[in-house]
Amino acid sequence: ADTKKIAVIAGDGIGPEVVAEAIKVMKKTEELYGLSFEFEHGLFGGIAIDEKGTPLPQETLDMCKAADAVLLGAVGGPKWDNNPKELRPETGLLGIRKALGLFSNIRPAKIFDCLKDASTLKPEVLEGTDLIVVRELTGGIYFGDKFRREGANGEEAVDTCVYNVHEVERIVRQAFEIARTRRKKLASVDKANVLETSRLWREVVNRIAPEYPDVELEHVLVDNCAMQLLRRPASFDVIVTENMFGDILSDEAAMLTGSIGMLSSASLGEGAFGLYEPVHGSAPDIAGQGIANPIATILSVALMYRLTFGYHEAAQSIEDAVASVLDAGHRTADIATDRSKAVGTQQMGDLIVAAM
Amino acid sequence: ADTKKIAVIAGDGIGPEVVAEAIKVMKKTEELYGLSFEFEHGLFGGIAIDEKGTPLPQETLDMCKAADAVLLGAVGGPKWDNNPKELRPETGLLGIRKALGLFSNIRPAKIFDCLKDASTLKPEVLEGTDLIVVRELTGGIYFGDKFRREGANGEEAVDTCVYNVHEVERIVRQAFEIARTRRKKLASVDKANVLETSRLWREVVNRIAPEYPDVELEHVLVDNCAMQLLRRPASFDVIVTENMFGDILSDEAAMLTGSIGMLSSASLGEGAFGLYEPVHGSAPDIAGQGIANPIATILSVALMYRLTFGYHEAAQSIEDAVASVLDAGHRTADIATDRSKAVGTQQMGDLIVAAM
Ligand SMILES: CC(C)[C@H](C(=O)O)[C@@H](O)C(=O)O
Ligand SMILES: CC(C)[C@H](C(=O)O)[C@@H](O)C(=O)O
Repeated sequence: ADTKKIAVIAGDGIGPEVVAEAIKVMKKTEELYGLSFEFEHGLFGGIAIDEKGTPLPQETLDMCKAADAVLLGAVGGPKWDNNPKELRPETGLLGIRKALGLFSNIRPAKIFDCLKDASTLKPEVLEGTDLIVVRELTGGIYFGDKFRREGANGEEAVDTCVYNVHEVERIVRQAFEIARTRRKKLASVDKANVLETSRLWREVVNRIAPEYPDVELEHVLVDNCAMQLLRRPASFDVIVTENMFGDILSDEAAMLTGSIGMLSSASLGEGAFGLYEPVHGSAPDIAGQGIANPIATILSVALMYRLTFGYHEAAQSIEDAVASVLDAGHRTADIATDRSKAVGTQQMGDLIVAAM
Repeated sequence: ADTKKIAVIAGDGIGPEVVAEAIKVMKKTEELYGLSFEFEHGLFGGIAIDEKGTPLPQETLDMCKAADAVLLGAVGGPKWDNNPKELRPETGLLGIRKALGLFSNIRPAKIFDCLKDASTLKPEVLEGTDLIVVRELTGGIYFGDKFRREGANGEEAVDTCVYNVHEVERIVRQAFEIARTRRKKLASVDKANVLETSRLWREVVNRIAPEYPDVELEHVLVDNCAMQLLRRPASFDVIVTENMFGDILSDEAAMLTGSIGMLSSASLGEGAFGLYEPVHGSAPDIAGQGIANPIATILSVALMYRLTFGYHEAAQSIEDAVASVLDAGHRTADIATDRSKAVGTQQMGDLIVAAM
């Protein structure tokens, strides 16, 4: 295969550690499947603030734009939490999403059979849970005007939530397409009984739905969805929703699985290009100790192979290797029942490479 | 005691059935504790749309304003779901909150020991869960300007989220006061890493916190809170948050208990006046069958006695009666493991009255 350019932004905390294992796995697939990657590394997040005075340096952005896909570790940490807005890691995160046009965030939440005891939910409730949250990522209240002003009752703060028809259409279509490749069920989540943006959202969904007669559509109010995820997680297939609701519901869905150290995500734009990252954060409390779980990042590579490159065979081999290593009983500390037997970050990476 | 005026708005679906049982319980407390109530009934929600052409008739509002407390059943149903906005039951709900100045919604989520198997969470995770969500109810994106406009990319919809310092102060103070009467822990939930209204919110919380040195404060991001509710529900005591986040998180917290038919709520303003209602909805699918669970509404009366009237002894007797009826094994269909042995709405009301 021709050489693919991968922009690697390891970021903060455990980011560099987990990304190193993901790259190890990618190199193994070069050997096994004749793939070829060129890795470029860039600064991003807290470390970029420290070294470059901005969470998203222009050269990092340029590197990402020139790449075929981006592999991201994690960003943030208490060190930068009280910085002014333009010097906070999350400002870089919002900035890179917007600058790369990544309007869609794909978050699979699937139960690994051998880990289902890790969940706080009863195993019989979780049985069969395998859902994807498709979250709109570059619109809504995240990106609308925000400001302070003097009101009649003193100082007030304002956030604006805006969606246009085009923004809703493209994400909803993508969700329908994904549902079509799966169990053919789509839950569109909104708050149409209160919000104008939700009413627009629902209109667009209803207008597009007839193009996908094979997909069963339900509209779910966001408060009800927060309940139903707990009550009947296995009944969901694909959930599509706007940015803020998606932030909340995708994290709730992730926690259902009980093993956030296992979950991957993809952020996509119009073409095949995508940014791939684990769902978990930078975990500053365990950074540098070599004990972080690299599986979420390794599975993000599998997602990259499937969604950006169409390397399905290599993706499958990664996913199978992860499953077989888990089945053999190997665990990092976060998912271990007996922490004294836990393997470290590198060891887990090595085990997965060996199983491929 | 002097006679208290209760405005009763039974509403739609199972509303009238559950409210009838709550009134039965109130009458029993008149007997037992020398209390005195005057009940006035008003139309509200779907039934008011049908009979008066508006979900919140002026006479109902006037009746509520003249009352000492409001007892609400439930509103809404598919019949009115596709009505234009001004003819939808939830428009009445938002209207009555605003018109009565009910800026605070109090939602306790507590596990009844004998019902803890009803939850989809593992019993050992739920153990000790006893939390209250304090939700801001008359501000934020619910009540800000909402409109459509032509944008550069076609039609767009806009919602505006606004909070002023005063609105945040009063709800946060109330939450601190409630925490003070309990386990003295307050979690303030926001999205301060993205929203300006959340940054204002957090500033106000931090400014007020020193007045409550006995209350332990934590700031939790809303996405993280959605996760932590699942992971460590018992660690929360009081959660305070803005309107939209509160809508989602209070429903998630309610579902944790597994028995939404048991949960009461209070909506409060500046004084002692309050509106009390069950957390569950109008359940049109089972309306008129006499099988709805009246306990949430009956417990809402206990909440009314405590928060509006200070009738603590009578409140306690209601709560104890409910517990003893449950302990004796009586169940309505929604919480029964053996539905064939389930008691009906009236029978449950009678059992509770008899146990008082
Ligand atoms: C860090 C924060 C700005 C971000 C978000 O809210 O989008 C994070 O929670 C996420 O979900 O990626
Ligand atoms: C019906 C709806 C407008 C309402 C709300 O969102 O406030 C309901 O969900 C609630 O929580 O009381």
